Amino acid sequence: MNLKIYLDNNATTKCDEEILNAMLPYLKENFGNPSSLYSFSKEVKDKVTEARKNVAKLLNAKESEIIFTSCASESNMSAIMNAVKNNPTKKHIITTKVEHASIMETMKYFEIQGYEITYLSSDNKGRIDLTELKNSIKKDTLLICVMMANNEIGNLYPINEIGEIARENQILFHCDAVQAVGKVKIDVQDMKIDTLSLSGHKIYAPKGIGVLYVKKGISFTPLIFGHQENNRRGGTENVPYIIGIGKAAEMIIKDDYKSVEKLEMLRNQMEVKIQNGIEDVYFYGDLKNRLPNTTNVAFKGLKGEELLFVLENYEIYVGIGSACNSKNAEPSHVLKAMGIDLSNSSPIRISLGKYNTEEEIDKFVATLSRVVKMLRRRK
Amino acid sequence: MNLKIYLDNNATTKCDEEILNAMLPYLKENFGNPSSLYSFSKEVKDKVTEARKNVAKLLNAKESEIIFTSCASESNMSAIMNAVKNNPTKKHIITTKVEHASIMETMKYFEIQGYEITYLSSDNKGRIDLTELKNSIKKDTLLICVMMANNEIGNLYPINEIGEIARENQILFHCDAVQAVGKVKIDVQDMKIDTLSLSGHKIYAPKGIGVLYVKKGISFTPLIFGHQENNRRGGTENVPYIIGIGKAAEMIIKDDYKSVEKLEMLRNQMEVKIQNGIEDVYFYGDLKNRLPNTTNVAFKGLKGEELLFVLENYEIYVGIGSACNSKNAEPSHVLKAMGIDLSNSSPIRISLGKYNTEEEIDKFVATLSRVVKMLRRRK
Repeated sequence: MNLKIYLDNNATTKCDEEILNAMLPYLKENFGNPSSLYSFSKEVKDKVTEARKNVAKLLNAKESEIIFTSCASESNMSAIMNAVKNNPTKKHIITTKVEHASIMETMKYFEIQGYEITYLSSDNKGRIDLTELKNSIKKDTLLICVMMANNEIGNLYPINEIGEIARENQILFHCDAVQAVGKVKIDVQDMKIDTLSLSGHKIYAPKGIGVLYVKKGISFTPLIFGHQENNRRGGTENVPYIIGIGKAAEMIIKDDYKSVEKLEMLRNQMEVKIQNGIEDVYFYGDLKNRLPNTTNVAFKGLKGEELLFVLENYEIYVGIGSACNSKNAEPSHVLKAMGIDLSNSSPIRISLGKYNTEEEIDKFVATLSRVVKMLRRRK
Repeated sequence: MNLKIYLDNNATTKCDEEILNAMLPYLKENFGNPSSLYSFSKEVKDKVTEARKNVAKLLNAKESEIIFTSCASESNMSAIMNAVKNNPTKKHIITTKVEHASIMETMKYFEIQGYEITYLSSDNKGRIDLTELKNSIKKDTLLICVMMANNEIGNLYPINEIGEIARENQILFHCDAVQAVGKVKIDVQDMKIDTLSLSGHKIYAPKGIGVLYVKKGISFTPLIFGHQENNRRGGTENVPYIIGIGKAAEMIIKDDYKSVEKLEMLRNQMEVKIQNGIEDVYFYGDLKNRLPNTTNVAFKGLKGEELLFVLENYEIYVGIGSACNSKNAEPSHVLKAMGIDLSNSSPIRISLGKYNTEEEIDKFVATLSRVVKMLRRRK
């Protein structure tokens, strides 16, 4: 029996057994290279096609618009690089101050290359202002890059409106949807998204597989050359993981976001219990418009890091900020952008997943309550 | 009992059970994100470090010189792009006419970008001429890019001499070692290699994991931004596959190329049997200096493709040219560079792996012999 309570599903999720079982034959006997001509590889190729269909269906995209990549960071880099290449005379990009590290690092790189980057400001709830977005548009704006959901605070951004603004101004719109997929419905057509990134390991497929959606008609220069993925992404296909992310997409479609409703109830109950059980608690983010699984919460006088390290003694795992920044344990750029004073208290991120139970949440809140009291007494 | 006879190991190999078993816990219960701060992820991080150590040891490199990527195509692209970025004033690259598609496509791209590419010619055995290499060097040569072993004909190239020439002339040397690794000893220091690419799925690890070696001291701009891999390759680490390629490296080190000797004997016996059993046979490549597992052979009057399709009826799988080109079944650029007339006959590629047995080879040669006779009678 596993006693661990894993509450860091925005960092990564446990691979679903059904997904793993779908993958395993392709790590074993069905090992053919999909590019080979013989029938032994035909079944492998067909399974890759099936996965592509499922991912396309999940996004309301066409199969031909789906490129399998190795991760969302690759998808993001590929999309931004492509937008730049498609607009050689334009030098301005609009993004936000709350994007994921892979976007932020890429923006920094292009800044050094002489591009002008507008980082839309964030209010104290992490929200962006569409008027500021509209006012930021210039003649040489080549890309608007806004995430669908924030990994740290869970905010959902007004993608429909941003898509509308981008399309009206004939500017490419890239959306990092890594944290949103599986939790909110994505429709790339309705949302007028030109390029979009996904990652497998946030939806119970393994780490090491991503998706890049590129709207039909957008000229595309690969980040990695080769004939695979219809000449848009070189490298022998990671067949098992492609099948894995395809299965993940299929399962989300089948579930039709029903399990997400349960997840949201569990999260909301948890927040009420934290609020009622612990004094001086601050919840961060846009509480009215956010992911159903994410809670960003601080406890007066306590640092997220100390909470994380004490909780792990109880085999309870929560996050602070983003796993993708946490190595250096630097203060979160998202919370900084929100103007939150982190000198005395800093939050933990609790991100639930489909395996979490009410019993786990109760045990977690009880432990958290004791730990907060204990740490506060020590101060 | 599996009756398939798989003889296309240069296209891809079957994942080794020991490698798969090493990976599986990290596809199951040990799913933590290596970037997370808690102890649950510490073990995962340690396993990634262990894998890096083994890969470094295999190449006689330092751990800090190893970057895990998603495939050799990514490694190749990353290395070439980096050489270009490191030499902004230089515009000339030297490569060969027999490189892998991922190199060829990248070279074509840079040609369009205004770079001058010298493609070293090949003789009728697929060999290159070091004098031509020396004479091709210009003041603005920024990179020499030569593969260690050819995927189609198996030729081994004079890497030590090329490394020497590159170092003397202070030109970066990139080596695609995908087909060589595990079959011939690689020593990046002795060979004076600056950057080198590997792929997992040619050494019994899965498809979707690669390695880029970057010699210490060479400035490196990532192809994909992010803090992972010491800020040199973004994206959450594909932990299971990294462990897989680490295990593959460990197994090669342990075996110390002993099983390769057996492989070579088996291949040589096979060639003798083909030579003795079938009339009008042509073996291609540098027969005195090539990979121990590869045979490129044509049968007068017959096309490789027709042989491939008849053999697969017997559940025997061979290649023609490279799997990475074969989708369009275009004539091999390698054989074209060798000046081989492909209008009447074209070769098949037989590439053995560690699971092939003498019994399989005997059955294969007997079947091949019958098939060749049958097809020739039909003409």
